Amino acid sequence: MTPGEIRALIEGVRAGAVAADEAERTLLGALRQQPFEDLGFAKVDHHRAIRQGFPEVILGLGKTPAQIAEIAVRIAGREAPLLVTRASREAFDAVQARLADVEYHELARAIVLRRPLPRASGTIVVASAGTSDLPVAEEAAITADLMGNDVTRVYDVGVAGIHRVLAQRATLEAARVIVVVAGMEGALPSVVAGMVNVPVIAVPTSVGYGASFGGIAALLGMLNSCANGVAVVNIDNGFGAGCMASLINHA
Amino acid sequence: MTPGEIRALIEGVRAGAVAADEAERTLLGALRQQPFEDLGFAKVDHHRAIRQGFPEVILGLGKTPAQIAEIAVRIAGREAPLLVTRASREAFDAVQARLADVEYHELARAIVLRRPLPRASGTIVVASAGTSDLPVAEEAAITADLMGNDVTRVYDVGVAGIHRVLAQRATLEAARVIVVVAGMEGALPSVVAGMVNVPVIAVPTSVGYGASFGGIAALLGMLNSCANGVAVVNIDNGFGAGCMASLINHA
Amino acid sequence: MTPGEIRALIEGVRAGAVAADEAERTLLGALRQQPFEDLGFAKVDHHRAIRQGFPEVILGLGKTPAQIAEIAVRIAGREAPLLVTRASREAFDAVQARLADVEYHELARAIVLRRPLPRASGTIVVASAGTSDLPVAEEAAITADLMGNDVTRVYDVGVAGIHRVLAQRATLEAARVIVVVAGMEGALPSVVAGMVNVPVIAVPTSVGYGASFGGIAALLGMLNSCANGVAVVNIDNGFGAGCMASLINHA
Amino acid sequence: MTPGEIRALIEGVRAGAVAADEAERTLLGALRQQPFEDLGFAKVDHHRAIRQGFPEVILGLGKTPAQIAEIAVRIAGREAPLLVTRASREAFDAVQARLADVEYHELARAIVLRRPLPRASGTIVVASAGTSDLPVAEEAAITADLMGNDVTRVYDVGVAGIHRVLAQRATLEAARVIVVVAGMEGALPSVVAGMVNVPVIAVPTSVGYGASFGGIAALLGMLNSCANGVAVVNIDNGFGAGCMASLINHA
Amino acid sequence: MTPGEIRALIEGVRAGAVAADEAERTLLGALRQQPFEDLGFAKVDHHRAIRQGFPEVILGLGKTPAQIAEIAVRIAGREAPLLVTRASREAFDAVQARLADVEYHELARAIVLRRPLPRASGTIVVASAGTSDLPVAEEAAITADLMGNDVTRVYDVGVAGIHRVLAQRATLEAARVIVVVAGMEGALPSVVAGMVNVPVIAVPTSVGYGASFGGIAALLGMLNSCANGVAVVNIDNGFGAGCMASLINHA
Amino acid sequence: MTPGEIRALIEGVRAGAVAADEAERTLLGALRQQPFEDLGFAKVDHHRAIRQGFPEVILGLGKTPAQIAEIAVRIAGREAPLLVTRASREAFDAVQARLADVEYHELARAIVLRRPLPRASGTIVVASAGTSDLPVAEEAAITADLMGNDVTRVYDVGVAGIHRVLAQRATLEAARVIVVVAGMEGALPSVVAGMVNVPVIAVPTSVGYGASFGGIAALLGMLNSCANGVAVVNIDNGFGAGCMASLINHA
Amino acid sequence: MTPGEIRALIEGVRAGAVAADEAERTLLGALRQQPFEDLGFAKVDHHRAIRQGFPEVILGLGKTPAQIAEIAVRIAGREAPLLVTRASREAFDAVQARLADVEYHELARAIVLRRPLPRASGTIVVASAGTSDLPVAEEAAITADLMGNDVTRVYDVGVAGIHRVLAQRATLEAARVIVVVAGMEGALPSVVAGMVNVPVIAVPTSVGYGASFGGIAALLGMLNSCANGVAVVNIDNGFGAGCMASLINHA
Amino acid sequence: MTPGEIRALIEGVRAGAVAADEAERTLLGALRQQPFEDLGFAKVDHHRAIRQGFPEVILGLGKTPAQIAEIAVRIAGREAPLLVTRASREAFDAVQARLADVEYHELARAIVLRRPLPRASGTIVVASAGTSDLPVAEEAAITADLMGNDVTRVYDVGVAGIHRVLAQRATLEAARVIVVVAGMEGALPSVVAGMVNVPVIAVPTSVGYGASFGGIAALLGMLNSCANGVAVVNIDNGFGAGCMASLINHA
Repeated sequence: MTPGEIRALIEGVRAGAVAADEAERTLLGALRQQPFEDLGFAKVDHHRAIRQGFPEVILGLGKTPAQIAEIAVRIAGREAPLLVTRASREAFDAVQARLADVEYHELARAIVLRRPLPRASGTIVVASAGTSDLPVAEEAAITADLMGNDVTRVYDVGVAGIHRVLAQRATLEAARVIVVVAGMEGALPSVVAGMVNVPVIAVPTSVGYGASFGGIAALLGMLNSCANGVAVVNIDNGFGAGCMASLINHA
Repeated sequence: MTPGEIRALIEGVRAGAVAADEAERTLLGALRQQPFEDLGFAKVDHHRAIRQGFPEVILGLGKTPAQIAEIAVRIAGREAPLLVTRASREAFDAVQARLADVEYHELARAIVLRRPLPRASGTIVVASAGTSDLPVAEEAAITADLMGNDVTRVYDVGVAGIHRVLAQRATLEAARVIVVVAGMEGALPSVVAGMVNVPVIAVPTSVGYGASFGGIAALLGMLNSCANGVAVVNIDNGFGAGCMASLINHA
Repeated sequence: MTPGEIRALIEGVRAGAVAADEAERTLLGALRQQPFEDLGFAKVDHHRAIRQGFPEVILGLGKTPAQIAEIAVRIAGREAPLLVTRASREAFDAVQARLADVEYHELARAIVLRRPLPRASGTIVVASAGTSDLPVAEEAAITADLMGNDVTRVYDVGVAGIHRVLAQRATLEAARVIVVVAGMEGALPSVVAGMVNVPVIAVPTSVGYGASFGGIAALLGMLNSCANGVAVVNIDNGFGAGCMASLINHA
Repeated sequence: MTPGEIRALIEGVRAGAVAADEAERTLLGALRQQPFEDLGFAKVDHHRAIRQGFPEVILGLGKTPAQIAEIAVRIAGREAPLLVTRASREAFDAVQARLADVEYHELARAIVLRRPLPRASGTIVVASAGTSDLPVAEEAAITADLMGNDVTRVYDVGVAGIHRVLAQRATLEAARVIVVVAGMEGALPSVVAGMVNVPVIAVPTSVGYGASFGGIAALLGMLNSCANGVAVVNIDNGFGAGCMASLINHA
Repeated sequence: MTPGEIRALIEGVRAGAVAADEAERTLLGALRQQPFEDLGFAKVDHHRAIRQGFPEVILGLGKTPAQIAEIAVRIAGREAPLLVTRASREAFDAVQARLADVEYHELARAIVLRRPLPRASGTIVVASAGTSDLPVAEEAAITADLMGNDVTRVYDVGVAGIHRVLAQRATLEAARVIVVVAGMEGALPSVVAGMVNVPVIAVPTSVGYGASFGGIAALLGMLNSCANGVAVVNIDNGFGAGCMASLINHA
Repeated sequence: MTPGEIRALIEGVRAGAVAADEAERTLLGALRQQPFEDLGFAKVDHHRAIRQGFPEVILGLGKTPAQIAEIAVRIAGREAPLLVTRASREAFDAVQARLADVEYHELARAIVLRRPLPRASGTIVVASAGTSDLPVAEEAAITADLMGNDVTRVYDVGVAGIHRVLAQRATLEAARVIVVVAGMEGALPSVVAGMVNVPVIAVPTSVGYGASFGGIAALLGMLNSCANGVAVVNIDNGFGAGCMASLINHA
Repeated sequence: MTPGEIRALIEGVRAGAVAADEAERTLLGALRQQPFEDLGFAKVDHHRAIRQGFPEVILGLGKTPAQIAEIAVRIAGREAPLLVTRASREAFDAVQARLADVEYHELARAIVLRRPLPRASGTIVVASAGTSDLPVAEEAAITADLMGNDVTRVYDVGVAGIHRVLAQRATLEAARVIVVVAGMEGALPSVVAGMVNVPVIAVPTSVGYGASFGGIAALLGMLNSCANGVAVVNIDNGFGAGCMASLINHA
Repeated sequence: MTPGEIRALIEGVRAGAVAADEAERTLLGALRQQPFEDLGFAKVDHHRAIRQGFPEVILGLGKTPAQIAEIAVRIAGREAPLLVTRASREAFDAVQARLADVEYHELARAIVLRRPLPRASGTIVVASAGTSDLPVAEEAAITADLMGNDVTRVYDVGVAGIHRVLAQRATLEAARVIVVVAGMEGALPSVVAGMVNVPVIAVPTSVGYGASFGGIAALLGMLNSCANGVAVVNIDNGFGAGCMASLINHA
């Protein structure tokens, strides 16, 4: 049972639409289900939807297409939305063979199965510094969208042409939370956080070469931001940023 | 002028309590003030209070007591609250000589001058893993408090005795945002984020020795958290975490 | 001669089942054998079975299938069990062409030839944090099994859903030694070591991306564990952990 | 209550020496005690003695003498042995003012209060490579001794004069577990583990200069040991090694 | 002889003001002087003034006050200007005892002896991000000034309040070369270089804490600048930046 | 409009060749154009040609051939020169299909479309240490050439045969700025900067193996140069060095 | 001319076998040759054979087969021996097409053309720790052999079975210089240097995984060797070690 | 007994100056002495003088003055020369109180007791790049001198003024082995090794700041030297270089 279903049930009882006995049976049935389902190679954490309002998300990296499909079927079987990140096309094919309605977002390398969720009232802006940062930015945007948020994309506004980001001031100020994605020197979050009064989730990317060291330069830049209101997630972790932004927007 | 003062003025005009002419004069006067005040060695950013709802915060590290006192006087002169982080007792003495009402928080190494600010409705929990993490945790707590938030402290609940943090489940679930401070392996944010459904701001500390490398171990642990809803600030950056939490709580 | 054979011989003498002359001849013959066999490109350390109770284990990494097969034949020729780690299928084919009874464990990338060995009385638990950690966990489990230990597998119990590992308390407490395998932030060993009173061998894995830096994050996390009774082996070194656990269990 | 006390009580009941009522009262009283004691700045984990057979050990680093003394008094008050590591003489003075019987081991920087504990039957050897490694080696030896183990010290047997360690073969072979402490290139654990058939706990030290990088060279050397049966603890973590060795010896 | 003196001599010959014989004698005398003067512990490179238009600059770090004074006297004895960087007050006292006219710049830790040099026509702007960056910025400014350049200082214009640097557009565009000094995330050079069409010399500083790693974060940020026309010098190397800017301005 | 076109228009007005009305219309039209062109995945910064005298340069790395071609067409459509760095042959084919006149420099991996630009009077020398450094050196040389500079190449003059670089003294002294490209220990910039009195732009390359760490050794060597007048760009960043040298030469 | 040819000529003059005029002509002719030959992409350093007794050695890494062949032909054309390291089979084919007598050492990845050189009287021992270290060890052995040294190979004598290297004491003591090749923890040079009284050249290899970090662990171990008489070359640099050993042996 | 004494005895027997009986007694007596002397905290390796021709050298770092004095007395008691490196003045005072003849070299931080040793015929040149490198260079020179070598010092010849080292060509060519000491970019060994045909021992120093990272920049530069015949010792390890040079010179 999702928190929404639980709430609906309780409201139903209060409103007299659901009998107390029936509510009790439904709730007991839900509690009797194991908090995780053991597939041998994985313990699918169904309890997470209760604790956290969204089911377990599958990190595709390091799992076989068959493993991904097996876990995906269990999650989707509980009427929960499905998100697989870092998913290859092979993984998508394996999942689609068993869950016909899934979509594949090639740029973001994400497999998605949409299910209705309560939507938050605020807007999440996802901003990115360069064209090469798009896969990570899209992963963040798709995650936030799937978790029930309105998302505005502001792409290719890196600091080397500062007028591009200054031109977006109105859009940025209208956000409740901003995800800023940047590689190379990773300076965009500092500039954005200095312009607005909302939390900024900074995502360093591995875009760059040489002394970017696979995203370390951007990561360190963001951790040392001289602006207030910046927190950082792992290199290339668009999912984590989208998820964090959604939690803030739903708070 | 703070956003609150601007809002009050506009409300006053709408309510007929303030004449249009007077409101215009007041607003023009505020706009005529330079957005920053040039002290030669520093440009005090008075505009920040308008952009971000809180004036510039002084990082004491690397500044002389005289420099800190000079900047502090300018900020306090605008009726804004004052916060100096990483402040030595010498810096406090220099500030107190010119601003009698300031307080010094020894454990957090913070100089504070309180001014009334709108308070947010949610609660911020500041949790820490060990006793040695207290200075950083206190910096976060004092920052959040000063910025207008209710703060609950949950200290010394490291993962080596997992029952200690499990015993705090109710307190954690009641928070709108949680700051988790930990050194050594920095595992506490993962555990906390797995227990609740609110954003977690993780603060690695330099507590530890050997392969903790001044906080790198904890920093990397937090960036790689397998739990959803964790974002990270710089090592020992209690202020940054408190500020980020306040932004989320006020969103 | 293995320690077991030596012990059997001495017991035989004491019991009168083996003549003193025969025993002397057997022992002298064994001592006359060179402590290592020189293949030109390798010196096979047959003495290790005497010193350490288990023959040399072949690290497949960086050796050609032909080299692996040649060394394997020499080891198996002394009636010793055989273990090749990090072995490709090509290496397995080359070994199987000369030693028909060998098995290949694909997930663990291990070639195994079983021979009877004295079994220890305690149980080794191998726990892992995520599905992607399985190859390393299986390498540990197969090593421990081959070296004469009972092994219990507890997989996919990462700290982001802390109830999964708490549910295994009884299994963990029943172990004489626990191997804990985890990538990303590597927090599981701290939690497990805090729950039980037995030695924990922690194995960081290279599972993760970005700031996991190929397992450095997990390695540092484990080295800095705030829990007592944790020691660490190299990244992805399932073999080393299984071997260490076996030594502890046989102590 | 320690596990020993619980066992004694149960034996007493079985033997008729303790009345069932009295046993019940005693056990209930123990269970009613909180699993940790909250000092505000610390939560003393009294439950650890039950879970792990030894009470919480205080890491002196980063705590004030007053904090250390306060925690020490609570631990000693439960009749448990006391160990404070990385303790300055100032910390010792503060503890001794409240607990007269404590000893200070200057070389190991350890504060110790002895209490009778069940002793294990095997011997722990603590070996060190050079004279400068002694503080760490002594911390390991004192920890193991306090936790109820017989300890043999084998000091200054570094690999540059290999005959020194070869001369200790008999002592090494007689151990149930060996702690090997070394700085600089950290090669001693590999040599020792190749000589014997018991688990080796390797402790890198920060002894060295230049490219030893505060113990990183030794740490990496030990993690990459080509010998079987080596596991590693943090740089300079003599306590951790002694504790791990004790767990193995008591297994 | 400095290049200026050589040019003057040649001009004098062409104009008939200097006899050919006298010019020859002067030039031969200069050439007969050794290209370096051997003090035993140092070889003072007098030839550098000919090759590079400015005499050897003394890096005070790691030299005793007596060594610095001895080298300073030799350089000043050739009528050349003198610059000692990273000089303590003790070093200044030792130099002043032998060269009365030297000045000490406390903030920049520089000892200076001024001598007339040809001045370049363009302007060098030295910009800095924060108040704590001033010592490095001043070292750059003093170096450039001493080498014959007009210098404009633009301090405390970090990117967190982007309006501060935007307000300096006219000053920046008027420069022939800009030195940008910044610690923490080091983002200012990217923004400045994107605003103007002149070369930018970026100087990372060790200002910051935690993951600034003594200036590594700023250094990497600057090396990865997405803006064109940025080159970088060593962390805290104000002298190197001032010298490079002077070479560009004199080109 | 490029700065050259603007200048030409103004000259035309002054000379009477262009009517004031027409000039006004032309200028207004240019200003009405957006400072950047939004392609969705990219915002092409046409304003850069005005700010910086050269249009946006496309970093091929991490962009698809289709994206590169699309951006290239927009840039070339404004009569600006085109430069794509780190371009694969596939990218070249995609661009050539739409812009027939482009050239491909295989060694430098650069796509180039030449357009007349004002040429600077000085010469840029591009020197390299070894044959393997040529791709980076050529990227620098082609960039500088395209931006309107005369370029002299001095290749394979590494310091291990110091007579090779000494033999180039005259060429080096004749330059207005020198780009020095070197991998391995990266010592060439120090030697060159000690020989001449012009700015040196040092480019570390990833040429080398083992402890060259992908160019880190060369990068650190150059940042720590004991010679005056050296500034450094990112590893393998030939473009950045050529661009910086051009800015200096045009100053 | 090689030093040998020069010496022969002078001896011929002294012995009356060569006329003074002829000797002068020969020497002048040699001096008139350029010290390096310019191929455009490379400056072949023919002078090196005079300075260093051995011609330039070609590092195959990062050069095309055509470039390698072109340089090889120039070197061989001066009757000098030829050595190409890190050479692929494709490079060998390209060289062999133009120089029929070259050999290819597959394991060492070396192309060799032998020419008679004066041989040193001492012996060089090349020792290696494991089978996977052979390519590097062979590169060292072939280099030393080609440069005129007697080489003894002692392979697979790693420290985990210390009896293997102890068994080689006589061979090691008979050497004038020893090259020791080892990956993983790189402990073998310390043990060997402690056994003998001759210089040891240590070569770390990239053999290992995880925290070997591509040879860093072995490199650091060797740099921190507690034994006297150890110096280190780059990771996997068998050539450098062979060359250094040859210089010592010929001293 | 030193190797010299053994040789003398054998020569005496051959010459009839020593009776066979007496020689036997002397040799047996020497063999009966333990190969090391156990002081509890140290095992003084007297056997090293036999194996390596020079007694154990004491690294003062991390030892107390009392420990140093105790070990020094034992070494000196065997008529061997004494060398203590990294020795403070306090350590010297403690040693001098018990061994009146010792000298203290303040610059090199070395305690020395001279004893006659066979001297090698070749010369060792110790070259250094800058004045701040002198302490390390002197440690190398004093070590080599004490071990029986003629030493020539060539100081302050860094590559930024390349004419200084070129002026020393004759001195460098006359050496049998050269020690080159340099900090910052560490380029001097490459230049020197390219000029001569003798082995070069490179010593990186921690001289520098910022991105020199305590000598890492110089260390990496030297390990990646493009010149042949360079091997490297630890950062600041003047002793190791002097010792290695002595071994080469005595070979």
